[in-house]
Amino acid sequence: MSDLRSKFLEVYSVLKSELLNDPAFEFTDVSRQWVDRMLDYNVPGGKLNRGLSVIDSLKLLKDGRELTDDEIFHASAVGWCIEWLQAYFLVLDDIMDSSHTRRGQPCWFRLPKIGMIAVNDGILLRNHIPRVLKKHFRGRPYYVDLLDLFNEVEFQTAHGQLIDLITTHEGEKDLSKYSLALHRRIVQYKTAYYSFYLPVACALLMAGEDLESHVDVKNILIEMGTYFQVQDDYLDCFGDPKVIGKVGTDIQDFKCSWVVVKALELSNEEQKKLLHENYGKDDQICIEKVKELYKVLDIQGVFLEYESSSYQKLTKSIESHSSKAVQAVLKSFLAKIYKRQK
Amino acid sequence: MSDLRSKFLEVYSVLKSELLNDPAFEFTDVSRQWVDRMLDYNVPGGKLNRGLSVIDSLKLLKDGRELTDDEIFHASAVGWCIEWLQAYFLVLDDIMDSSHTRRGQPCWFRLPKIGMIAVNDGILLRNHIPRVLKKHFRGRPYYVDLLDLFNEVEFQTAHGQLIDLITTHEGEKDLSKYSLALHRRIVQYKTAYYSFYLPVACALLMAGEDLESHVDVKNILIEMGTYFQVQDDYLDCFGDPKVIGKVGTDIQDFKCSWVVVKALELSNEEQKKLLHENYGKDDQICIEKVKELYKVLDIQGVFLEYESSSYQKLTKSIESHSSKAVQAVLKSFLAKIYKRQK
Ligand SMILES: [Mg+2]
Ligand SMILES: [Mg+2]
Ligand SMILES: [Mg+2]
Ligand SMILES: [Mg+2]
Ligand SMILES: [Mg+2]
Ligand SMILES: [Mg+2]
Repeated sequence: MSDLRSKFLEVYSVLKSELLNDPAFEFTDVSRQWVDRMLDYNVPGGKLNRGLSVIDSLKLLKDGRELTDDEIFHASAVGWCIEWLQAYFLVLDDIMDSSHTRRGQPCWFRLPKIGMIAVNDGILLRNHIPRVLKKHFRGRPYYVDLLDLFNEVEFQTAHGQLIDLITTHEGEKDLSKYSLALHRRIVQYKTAYYSFYLPVACALLMAGEDLESHVDVKNILIEMGTYFQVQDDYLDCFGDPKVIGKVGTDIQDFKCSWVVVKALELSNEEQKKLLHENYGKDDQICIEKVKELYKVLDIQGVFLEYESSSYQKLTKSIESHSSKAVQAVLKSFLAKIYKRQK
Repeated sequence: MSDLRSKFLEVYSVLKSELLNDPAFEFTDVSRQWVDRMLDYNVPGGKLNRGLSVIDSLKLLKDGRELTDDEIFHASAVGWCIEWLQAYFLVLDDIMDSSHTRRGQPCWFRLPKIGMIAVNDGILLRNHIPRVLKKHFRGRPYYVDLLDLFNEVEFQTAHGQLIDLITTHEGEKDLSKYSLALHRRIVQYKTAYYSFYLPVACALLMAGEDLESHVDVKNILIEMGTYFQVQDDYLDCFGDPKVIGKVGTDIQDFKCSWVVVKALELSNEEQKKLLHENYGKDDQICIEKVKELYKVLDIQGVFLEYESSSYQKLTKSIESHSSKAVQAVLKSFLAKIYKRQK
């Protein structure tokens, strides 16, 4: 484990212990144990990319000089707030999607004696964020901007989730609702803001920057987040299950995936009919028919083209940015995701 | 309808329309209609006491002078934030309690095509609050205190809900977990902070006061909120269904109600056994046995005594407060709830 990662994980223990002793609530032993277990189960088990990238970004914004212990601690605390936000979204998303597993273990609400109490646990996760921010940032000049930022990004994510839910779950399965424009809108709001923009925006605030003067940075990161989700959709269908760590289910789940949206766009009437008849059915024969059509339409080739043209566009936008430090942040994000296999 | 109430309802329309056109999200027609309908169904249908009391309290804090239109609008906006907060809690609480009706209509998640999307709708309601606050209070000196206040009160409410959920739903029904101390803790955190303290705290901030110097006001309001919930528990069992508008179900729902907690305290071993055997069963014979025991223990008499001693204690605390304006706010709250029949 890298030094940074282990320092980051130490901060998790500090924050957890502060939350479990928050004077705003008188914990009973049982409730303290509940929250303790809930946090350990849901918060630190992911890849931690979002949280760690706050520290990386802050360092790059400081022209690469070593961060002080105080800077590392505070960047970690904000990074953990993003991980907490993610945990909150995932706990509730799994309930709404009736999912069974997450990160290789049963979804939290599937555990015995949890069930719908998980809804409130999601809320607790969300409520921990302003507690952490208040404790560690209340006196800083950018405290109110940090609160506004988290509030705005959460608002956007919840609305992205709304159009995803309406599209995927509401009423009869109707593929004709799916389009590239809808896909882009879902992805941008549901994923890109909190996964890509938020970590960098936090680092910018900590570096004393004003977010209003960085709209271009936001746009580039949203673009990158969209590209990241297209990869995710692609890997769900074409990735190696051994590498990505799960067997994709977007086809049977009737997901508004970039893959099916692209296939619809490229299909003739007959092929569209095949998609309408077979997409979203949990039946191996239907799934195979859809995959066969993806082969015929050369979706893999279309993806490779999309990938390289996205990369070129992003690189160009990044290089036209006036600050070398900001360029370095954006390039490090892009390098982490370009041509990823998982 | 009083003039104030109709002005308050006008502000609802303004806020709703701002939210449905929030530039932070690109609404589709379908998602805008969804949120519109969801708000109308869940937000304005209650008694609006919490929201309206912000305006009343602010007026009393200004020594009773008429508020300007701007003051009324802003107090209403904050008042609606509390109503939004309440709607958020109720939408999610009904899911967690598997409830069927709320305010005389089906619970939101019970409607066709809603289901678990209601979890995200609860989240949206919650997310609307900081949007309203940002739009209308961003420049004001107490903006950050308002954000902190809402965050802290939501944190407390969610933790009150946690101990309520753990106590009521987790594991086997075990009456021996119930005590006056647990009841007080649940009520204080789950209800009193957001229903009693929050409206007055908002008014204090708007009147330019500092919340740190009003801890005594908080304590009195928490005490009042506890008394209010004890009334609620009492009325669930002994109130007139025609007056309270519903038939109580706390006995069969195994609720940690003041009534059962008091009965446990006053019972001998044999009576305790009867409670353990019959409380929390959805069976008319069991319910009657419990009610019969309440009669034997004279819970109604015990309640009347509790009520008058609470009233005296509260009045004494209020009258020892140094500010006449603050006294007036607290007295108006107490007058609204003392000896209420619904
Ligand atoms: Mg999901
Ligand atoms: Mg989902
Ligand atoms: Mg995926
Ligand atoms: Mg309930
Ligand atoms: Mg409940
Ligand atoms: Mg009740």
